[in-house]
Amino acid sequence: MPSRPEDDDPRLGDISEGRILQAILARTAPASHTLIGPGDDAAVIAAPSGTVVATTDTLVHGPDFRLAWSSGYDLGWKAAAVNLADVAAMGARPTALLVALAVPRDLRLSFVERLADGFSDACAALAPGCGVVGGDLTVSDTLTVAVTALGDLEGRAAVTRSGARPGDAVAVAGELGHAARGLTVLFGRFRDGETPVAVDTALLADGERAALSAQLRPAPPIGLGPVAAVAGATAMMDISDGLALDARRMAEASGVTIALDGDALGDNRERALAGGEDHALLATFSDGVLPPGFRVIGTVLPRGAEALLCDGVPVDVAGWDPYRDWDSASG
Amino acid sequence: MPSRPEDDDPRLGDISEGRILQAILARTAPASHTLIGPGDDAAVIAAPSGTVVATTDTLVHGPDFRLAWSSGYDLGWKAAAVNLADVAAMGARPTALLVALAVPRDLRLSFVERLADGFSDACAALAPGCGVVGGDLTVSDTLTVAVTALGDLEGRAAVTRSGARPGDAVAVAGELGHAARGLTVLFGRFRDGETPVAVDTALLADGERAALSAQLRPAPPIGLGPVAAVAGATAMMDISDGLALDARRMAEASGVTIALDGDALGDNRERALAGGEDHALLATFSDGVLPPGFRVIGTVLPRGAEALLCDGVPVDVAGWDPYRDWDSASG
Repeated sequence: MPSRPEDDDPRLGDISEGRILQAILARTAPASHTLIGPGDDAAVIAAPSGTVVATTDTLVHGPDFRLAWSSGYDLGWKAAAVNLADVAAMGARPTALLVALAVPRDLRLSFVERLADGFSDACAALAPGCGVVGGDLTVSDTLTVAVTALGDLEGRAAVTRSGARPGDAVAVAGELGHAARGLTVLFGRFRDGETPVAVDTALLADGERAALSAQLRPAPPIGLGPVAAVAGATAMMDISDGLALDARRMAEASGVTIALDGDALGDNRERALAGGEDHALLATFSDGVLPPGFRVIGTVLPRGAEALLCDGVPVDVAGWDPYRDWDSASG
Repeated sequence: MPSRPEDDDPRLGDISEGRILQAILARTAPASHTLIGPGDDAAVIAAPSGTVVATTDTLVHGPDFRLAWSSGYDLGWKAAAVNLADVAAMGARPTALLVALAVPRDLRLSFVERLADGFSDACAALAPGCGVVGGDLTVSDTLTVAVTALGDLEGRAAVTRSGARPGDAVAVAGELGHAARGLTVLFGRFRDGETPVAVDTALLADGERAALSAQLRPAPPIGLGPVAAVAGATAMMDISDGLALDARRMAEASGVTIALDGDALGDNRERALAGGEDHALLATFSDGVLPPGFRVIGTVLPRGAEALLCDGVPVDVAGWDPYRDWDSASG
């Protein structure tokens, strides 16, 4: 991005809320389900199924991202992607995003513009037809991006995490452990927390660069959520906190045991089990025929003593809990 | 509220996300439109009209509230009320709230419990049948409550802010300037920013106490939004930033001039025009018959040189703009 003269790129605290909103809205394309878009008290979105799927997820500077590592574009993209994944995990097609921004006064307008670009591009790439229909802008010492995503079930029943039944195949679509590897790259190579990643990516190996992208601009298989629902998925969820933690949640919700096949988890089994933030789709299918994009990683058993096994052994890998893992001082 | 032993009221940073969410969910009643509530990747809410109204609004510690003045209960109540008002202003009935909390680690569990109580009680009092259907919890140095409210139009068209036509009556339901008076009371009597309001309310005059309540726990007339829509309101919005600013926005959106009657604005005209945060409903009606709860405060004229007049004179009162008015150092 070419640099801009400072007076053309003011700090947010020096300009009106109206000008900031105008800059954001100029960058967000109307979504195909939008009946009334930004500018009124509320948006109105088509819900042709007579129901609406809704989820909210927030990214906070410190625990969820760092400006030294993520550009505004990365941040907008990721905030969109993680919410779209939750809609897809119900088997729904995303229809709309609402974006609540709390921004420090000394951030520059270009940062917010690039954030809006990230939202738009993530929608276009991952969930065509979905876009930002409303939002809110306020000042805060801590940069915070709270997103709500809405979706339509297209007449289908929602796919919950509680429907897995003994005999079902356990399958996944998307990557396992890539985002976690990307985080390791960030911590290892940019430990000072100040060097912008963009400057140094030339030094990275290809695998590292892909992992970095998975961490900063995840691309979960949003379109495969509805595909799995059409194919009869019995349970589905997105893997935000790591396969071990999330598969255990599915097993507990369904009252079953999930038995994973270690060989199906790639060359770094530990990372595939523990690594969060990939937002791959975890689903179970009863008839043995998987839709394209899904691969088998295990089977569902009647509930035994353990909710989660890998190669027959209880899995003792924890996932990501921001309350336990995040240290404000180092965050 | 009786005090609790410290070990029974842990800091949020010392307990798991799961325990915090459990405490919140135990306090939020299911909403009547909820098909799938909290606990899955997303909620599913009935949208019987085939459309859904959606809005988001955030309260940030500093510019929007102070913990020295607002209890957790106040904060939950207000965060619900301001979002419910935006749904009502479209003529819709609120069906669901999603709540994204970003909380400092040193806050106590009881604070979040009372916050959840505030959400529940505001829904029960202002929008029966609406409740919290989902949310998100993360850590942040800055306490932030981002709420998304959903609503159903019950088969009616949405009432936008752009439908006011010359000859319409301009009407309002709810208070004007009360919340602003409450803020003045807070700044005047609790200037040190540390004395909890609850300790000193006995010293307040009745009018001050009511104004304080309007500021801390606003009770906008949510149910009158659908009533106005049924009665044929041509335009409607909620007054968040003061009558002067918001009536001007309605006039600009509708391409008309709004002429206010100063005598209809109460005994403190300046405060009624400038004071934000009451979330009264501003609406226009074309047939001269107002629904119960609304009072006439002016008329709609063809667009003249000025978008907003009061007693025939241009209104030169600004409303609330957090980018201009908020000072982080004193916030």
